[in-house]
Amino acid sequence: MRAIGIESGGDRPRLFDVDRPEPAPGEVLVRTLRVGVDGTDHEVIAGDHGGFPADEERLVLGHEAVGVVVDPTTTDFERGDVVTPMVRRPSPGGTNAYFERAEPDMAPPSACVERGIDGAHGFMSEYFTSPAPFLIPVPEAHAAWGFLAEPISVLEKALDLARASRSSFTWEPETALVLGNGALGLLAVALLAPEMDVYCLGRRDRPDPTIDLLESLDATYVDARETPVGKVPTAHEPVDLVVEATGAPRHAVESVDALAPNGVAALLGLPGSQELTVDAGRFHEDLVMHNKAVVGSVNAGPTHFHAAVDRLETLPAWFFDRYVTDLVPVDRFEAAFGPDTTIKAAVEFDTV
Amino acid sequence: MRAIGIESGGDRPRLFDVDRPEPAPGEVLVRTLRVGVDGTDHEVIAGDHGGFPADEERLVLGHEAVGVVVDPTTTDFERGDVVTPMVRRPSPGGTNAYFERAEPDMAPPSACVERGIDGAHGFMSEYFTSPAPFLIPVPEAHAAWGFLAEPISVLEKALDLARASRSSFTWEPETALVLGNGALGLLAVALLAPEMDVYCLGRRDRPDPTIDLLESLDATYVDARETPVGKVPTAHEPVDLVVEATGAPRHAVESVDALAPNGVAALLGLPGSQELTVDAGRFHEDLVMHNKAVVGSVNAGPTHFHAAVDRLETLPAWFFDRYVTDLVPVDRFEAAFGPDTTIKAAVEFDTV
Repeated sequence: MRAIGIESGGDRPRLFDVDRPEPAPGEVLVRTLRVGVDGTDHEVIAGDHGGFPADEERLVLGHEAVGVVVDPTTTDFERGDVVTPMVRRPSPGGTNAYFERAEPDMAPPSACVERGIDGAHGFMSEYFTSPAPFLIPVPEAHAAWGFLAEPISVLEKALDLARASRSSFTWEPETALVLGNGALGLLAVALLAPEMDVYCLGRRDRPDPTIDLLESLDATYVDARETPVGKVPTAHEPVDLVVEATGAPRHAVESVDALAPNGVAALLGLPGSQELTVDAGRFHEDLVMHNKAVVGSVNAGPTHFHAAVDRLETLPAWFFDRYVTDLVPVDRFEAAFGPDTTIKAAVEFDTV
Repeated sequence: MRAIGIESGGDRPRLFDVDRPEPAPGEVLVRTLRVGVDGTDHEVIAGDHGGFPADEERLVLGHEAVGVVVDPTTTDFERGDVVTPMVRRPSPGGTNAYFERAEPDMAPPSACVERGIDGAHGFMSEYFTSPAPFLIPVPEAHAAWGFLAEPISVLEKALDLARASRSSFTWEPETALVLGNGALGLLAVALLAPEMDVYCLGRRDRPDPTIDLLESLDATYVDARETPVGKVPTAHEPVDLVVEATGAPRHAVESVDALAPNGVAALLGLPGSQELTVDAGRFHEDLVMHNKAVVGSVNAGPTHFHAAVDRLETLPAWFFDRYVTDLVPVDRFEAAFGPDTTIKAAVEFDTV
């Protein structure tokens, strides 16, 4: 079967021919429908993040997938069920406490591998197998956008941590600032806009489809070249929540400047090492005097995946139609990896 | 009556003669027993924090107090009740939502004054008045150390925020690092040591009474001159919780280095502006990849004061005896403000 991945020494994705996997009892064989591409894939391709499975020289990509069960083996799934797979699996050698209590997203890197990212093959192939507990059902009506459950789940997890951090007092957020109008940032805008006034920060000139889309969601575009993060309170208003989706190294510190008292910044990006001069004293004092918080968040657990699948129903259909701009067949998979993608790209392997 | 405070232009506390306050209906007249001195007092005296009441040129100090009700007026208190006062009051002009929902600690600075600190006279006088809702009952058996309810409440609030920030997943902290072996740091050690393994970071040479006291609490002293915050994981172990009680401007960033995955740093210090070169990218990425959090915390609400009063009973009596090293009568009040205090100083106005 066809699979898309990277090889040791390579600098771009390739099409491989690999054996179709055989599901063991308790595993499910899934026929892949669509697999999304995101910033993490680009980091993996560039060698900045993740790694190959042990003793292998290549990695099948893909961690945002939706597919159809073709062989449920001994599991409770049925042939024809639409599913989306979770990404993290226990490190080779067996399960551990994080997985046993259904909190894979809280596992430290040493306790897990990530399919398609770090140490385990992903889902960007015509078929994949998975133990049943790592598959989340998706209503067939939402199969087309089911691969977006994974990026949405990552946001649900971050919002979950952010809300929890404010749960010891009355917190009713009314305003949010999303840092980044890339694919993840626009999803964050879509999730938050029904609940609060949302600003979305980017660095693009109009006309631009991401600006059009966020404005269609009733969010306000903030051009970071005119209004950097720390100026949002004076140019617009302080915000109760920041969702950081860029990985710019300044943002962990600058997000706090944008917060109203008692606000929280949820960080999602992975900037890598970079030294900067910052007013560390003011950062510290602002956190204390105004009861502010910063939470980092990675990956997502089953509750977040289920919440994400619910969002496939509640988010408007027009949003998905405009959001997924680059849906390409397997034989043109290179087009899904840019550089000319518009908002969200995915590779289509098959249809329901 | 005698009161201890500061005057505009002065640089040290003075003894004033002021009128004994008359309680209005709904207020309580309290005869002061003891009032503690802490780092915030020193910041107020130095002019680095807080301020005088509107249209006044002096401020009665004192925000850590315990006293005895002498006139309950129309309130439910009875003459002889031992009480400790909360610090924050609504800004002049009336109450607001933060006070109405009993969350004064979450009020932004513009919505509150702080008695003895910012905009309202404190409790360092022979008598003070307070509306009844701002007085927390203290069992008479614990009257002697009742002035410590306030600093303990500040820690309870910080721990409450820290725990809340980890409440969306299973979090069972086993190790803590307290930054600072000053008065607040040692109280934090006393609260945490019964629950987890505690390290306490300082910069003092042995023999030293703070090191002796923290070791008596079964905590481990870490000399920051040999082992800075970020080296604690390699020299000892990564910790689940950091409680920052120094106000060193590096600590907001360095605390995260000391955390184990899924850990949280609670910040309490007020360093003021200071530019530093930090690896902002690594700070950001570490927060994300390891689901870490930083929470700032200031002041305390009624639930935290009640929890603090409970601690007066559960902490060992020997701890308080060794912790309060400088208990001085009013006529020697200068001695409570240093520079020769040992651990914790308080001014004694009267006895039960």
